[in-house]
Amino acid sequence: MINVTVWNEYRHELKDDKVRDVYPEGIHGQIASFLSEENIKVKTATLDEPEHGLTQEVLDNTDVLIWWGHLAHDEVEDDVVNRVHERVLDGMGLVVLHSAHMSKIFMKLMGTSCDLKWREAEEKERLWVVNPSHPIAEGVDETIELVEEMYGEHFDVPTPDELIFIGWYEGGNVFRSGMTYRRGNGKIFYFQPGHETYPTYHHKQIQKVIKNGVEWCNPTPRSRPVYGNSDPLEEIKGFE
Amino acid sequence: MINVTVWNEYRHELKDDKVRDVYPEGIHGQIASFLSEENIKVKTATLDEPEHGLTQEVLDNTDVLIWWGHLAHDEVEDDVVNRVHERVLDGMGLVVLHSAHMSKIFMKLMGTSCDLKWREAEEKERLWVVNPSHPIAEGVDETIELVEEMYGEHFDVPTPDELIFIGWYEGGNVFRSGMTYRRGNGKIFYFQPGHETYPTYHHKQIQKVIKNGVEWCNPTPRSRPVYGNSDPLEEIKGFE
Amino acid sequence: MINVTVWNEYRHELKDDKVRDVYPEGIHGQIASFLSEENIKVKTATLDEPEHGLTQEVLDNTDVLIWWGHLAHDEVEDDVVNRVHERVLDGMGLVVLHSAHMSKIFMKLMGTSCDLKWREAEEKERLWVVNPSHPIAEGVDETIELVEEMYGEHFDVPTPDELIFIGWYEGGNVFRSGMTYRRGNGKIFYFQPGHETYPTYHHKQIQKVIKNGVEWCNPTPRSRPVYGNSDPLEEIKGFE
Amino acid sequence: MINVTVWNEYRHELKDDKVRDVYPEGIHGQIASFLSEENIKVKTATLDEPEHGLTQEVLDNTDVLIWWGHLAHDEVEDDVVNRVHERVLDGMGLVVLHSAHMSKIFMKLMGTSCDLKWREAEEKERLWVVNPSHPIAEGVDETIELVEEMYGEHFDVPTPDELIFIGWYEGGNVFRSGMTYRRGNGKIFYFQPGHETYPTYHHKQIQKVIKNGVEWCNPTPRSRPVYGNSDPLEEIKGFE
Repeated sequence: MINVTVWNEYRHELKDDKVRDVYPEGIHGQIASFLSEENIKVKTATLDEPEHGLTQEVLDNTDVLIWWGHLAHDEVEDDVVNRVHERVLDGMGLVVLHSAHMSKIFMKLMGTSCDLKWREAEEKERLWVVNPSHPIAEGVDETIELVEEMYGEHFDVPTPDELIFIGWYEGGNVFRSGMTYRRGNGKIFYFQPGHETYPTYHHKQIQKVIKNGVEWCNPTPRSRPVYGNSDPLEEIKGFE
Repeated sequence: MINVTVWNEYRHELKDDKVRDVYPEGIHGQIASFLSEENIKVKTATLDEPEHGLTQEVLDNTDVLIWWGHLAHDEVEDDVVNRVHERVLDGMGLVVLHSAHMSKIFMKLMGTSCDLKWREAEEKERLWVVNPSHPIAEGVDETIELVEEMYGEHFDVPTPDELIFIGWYEGGNVFRSGMTYRRGNGKIFYFQPGHETYPTYHHKQIQKVIKNGVEWCNPTPRSRPVYGNSDPLEEIKGFE
Repeated sequence: MINVTVWNEYRHELKDDKVRDVYPEGIHGQIASFLSEENIKVKTATLDEPEHGLTQEVLDNTDVLIWWGHLAHDEVEDDVVNRVHERVLDGMGLVVLHSAHMSKIFMKLMGTSCDLKWREAEEKERLWVVNPSHPIAEGVDETIELVEEMYGEHFDVPTPDELIFIGWYEGGNVFRSGMTYRRGNGKIFYFQPGHETYPTYHHKQIQKVIKNGVEWCNPTPRSRPVYGNSDPLEEIKGFE
Repeated sequence: MINVTVWNEYRHELKDDKVRDVYPEGIHGQIASFLSEENIKVKTATLDEPEHGLTQEVLDNTDVLIWWGHLAHDEVEDDVVNRVHERVLDGMGLVVLHSAHMSKIFMKLMGTSCDLKWREAEEKERLWVVNPSHPIAEGVDETIELVEEMYGEHFDVPTPDELIFIGWYEGGNVFRSGMTYRRGNGKIFYFQPGHETYPTYHHKQIQKVIKNGVEWCNPTPRSRPVYGNSDPLEEIKGFE
C-alpha cells in the first residue's frame, strides 16, 4: 500500500471557468481519481487549507507527495517547504508536475533557477521515451501525443540522474520532459505535461506515467545512513 | 514470477578441494538455493553442458541471467556470447558476479578492457552503500564485512549509470563494487564479491543484494522501440 | 598542437554528383580544411587506402580521430577496428559523426545496436544546447538551424556521460544529437549532423562544435592506470 | 588569465598554534601561494572582512572562487551566500574544499544535508583516481597518500556528474573525495582533503589537483540561455 498525498495550489480552478470545465474536482481531484487503486491510498491537500494541508502528521503518513502549483508559489510558507524538504531527505517520494518546476520545494532541492522557455500557443507536443527499460516507461507507448503549453530548453536544472522523456513541440522547441533525481533518501520525478487549460490529466498514457512515477518514488525499507563522529571499524561478521 | 538462470563455469569446484568444501553443490547450486523463493524460479547452466546450457530456448525463457566465470572465459563460444548479447539488448536482465568482469559477455557489453588490480591475501573487505535509496540496497546494512580477494581501482569500465557500493580493502585499495548499466532494453548489475575460496555466497547480506539485483534487473512489459525508416508523425490521439 | 586524423569512407562523393557538388574534396577534405589551424595539425585517411589509411604508425601519431562512414561499414577490416579500439582505450580521442553511429568501432565501444529511426525528407532540424557550460558548447548559439536527415529516438546507445545537444525535427522527432562517453583512457564525442547531400560541414556553427569536440577529446599527459596483481600499499609519501 | 579568489574562514589559524604552525599565512595564503602562476591571478578574502570580502565587485571579477570554512558556517550572511549563488548560476566556477561540505553555499547548491561520517585519528588516507582521462586528474598519480581526518560514506550529496577520486581510510571507511557538479552555467568541484591540522595543502599532488580543478571550473565564452516567453521559431540560417 502506497500512501499518496496530491497537493494542488487550487486557484486556477476557482477563478477560471475554462480550467474548472476541464477539472471540475480540481487538478488534485482528477489526479486522485485516477490514482486510486488497490495498492494506492490517496489524500489531497491544497494551498488554502491550514498549513497548506501539509501538517507534520500528514507528511509523516505520506509515502509519495505529488505537487502541482503555478500562480502562488510565493504563498507557500517557508516552514512548510522546509518540512517537506526534510521528509524528502528522509525518504518520502516527490512527483513534481508541470509548472511546479518553479515551486519553492523543487528549487530548494535542485539548487538552480529551474527557469525555462515557455509559450501558450495550443501547440502539439510529442513525448518520446529515451529510456525504454526504466520502470517509469513501463506500459507506455514509445511516443505520447498531446496539446500542451510549450516548455523549452534550456531548462536550468542539474543534470538528471535519469532522463526518461524528451518533449518535441510544433513551434520548434525541445524539453527534457521526464527526469529523475535522488536527494537524500528520497526519490524525485519531474514530469512536464499538465497545463491547467488542457485535459492532460485525462490522457490514459499520462495517467500511466504518473502512476509509474508514484511506484518508482515509493520508499522501501532500508537502513538509514548514520552520520557524525564514527569509530574505526574492526570486526568481521555476517556469515551464516 | 521471475525466471532466473544461474550460469557457472563450474571448474574450480571440480578440481580444487578447498572450493568444493565451500560450495559442494557448485557456486551455481548455492546461488540457486538462496534465490529459490515464491516469486523466483531458478534453473542452472554450466560451461561443459552442450551450448554451455544456454540454448536459444533456455535464454528465451530466462528473465534474468546470473553469470559467474573465471578460469575459462575463452572457452565460451562466440555464438553463445552473441546469443546472450542479443537477449540482453532485447530486455533480459544480467547479474555479473566477481571474476565475470572479464567474461566475454561483460566485455562485449561494456566496450572496454574491464581490467583491474587484484590480490589474494585473505584480507578484510568492507562494502559501503553510497546510494541508500536504490532498490538494490533495500534491506541492506550500511556496511557489509567480508574476507575477499582484493579487486582494486582503476576498474576499466564505463562510468556506471548508478554506483551503489564502494568496497574498502585492508591492504589500501578501493573498488566500485556494485554498479548498474542499461544496455538496449536490458539492465545489468555488476557485483564484485564472490571469490571461489571464500564463503561469500553464504553471507546473508550478500544474498540479499543478489536477490535485490535480480528483482531490479527483471524486465517489465513495455513497448519496444521501433527502428528504421519512419514517416513524419501527424495525428493527435489518446485522450479519453 | 593536436594531431587529428579525419577518416572518411569516401564512396558517396565518388559515385553521386549531388554529394560531390557539396563536397568536391570529399567530406574528409572539407572537415580537414576548417580544422586546420595553429593548434591543430590535420591528416586524412580513407577506406580504400591500404589498411584504410589507419596503420599502427598513423594511429600512434593521432591524438584525435574523426570518423565518417555510411555505405560500407562492413568493409572496414576487423583488425583495423581492433587497432583503433586499442588506441581509444589507450587515450586517443574519437569524434563520431552522423551515420558512423553504426560503424564497427562505435558499436564495439558502445556494446549496443546503436540503431535509430531515420527519414530523408529535406526537413528542418534545430539543435538545442542543453549543457551550456560544457566546453563543446563554447561559442555556440543556444540553437543551430539546419536542413538534415532525420535521426530519431529511440537511439539505442548507453546513457551518455554528458548530453550536450538535443535535435528537433520538423516531422515530429527528437534526438540526443551531441553526447560524450569515456571508454578506457579515451574520450568520445558523438555528433549527429552531417548527411552527405546537405552542406552541413560548411555551417560555421557546426564547424565550431566539431573543433570544440576535437579539443575536448584531446588526451592530456596522465599517469596510466596499472592493472594486475598488486601488493598491499604501506608507505606515506609526497609532502614537501 | 584566470581570476581566482580564495575564500577562507580564517579562524582556526588565529586561535590554534598547531594550525598556525602549519599555515602561518592562513590556509588562504598557502592556497594563493601555490596557485600564483602565469595564467592565474589570485586574490584572497576572509570571513571577518566587510561583506566577508565578497562584494559584488569582487565576485564580478572572479572567474573561480575557492571556499574553505569549518567553525563558522552560520556566520556567513545569507545575502552574501545568495550573491555567490547567483554568480555560480551565472557561470563563476566554485572549488569547495574539505569541511566546506557544510557551508551554506554548498548546501544551497546541492539541496541535501551534505552530512557525512568523520573521525580525527591521525589516520592514513589514500586517494584513488577512478576517472583517469578527466582533466582534473591530469598529471596526478594513480594514488595520493595523505594523513587526514576521516570523511566517510554515506555522504549525503546528489549523485555527482563526475566521480574522479575515491578516498580509502585506514580505519575502514571510504569516501567520494573528488566530484564535479554543474549548476546553472557554473561548474563546481568538491575536493575532500584539507583538515586544518595537517599539511595537506603543502602536498604537491594535492596542489596539482586544485590547480586542475581551477582550470576545469574556469568559465569560457558562451551564449547565455534565454528564458521566458518565447516565439515559435521559423527561419533557417547559418550556412556560409
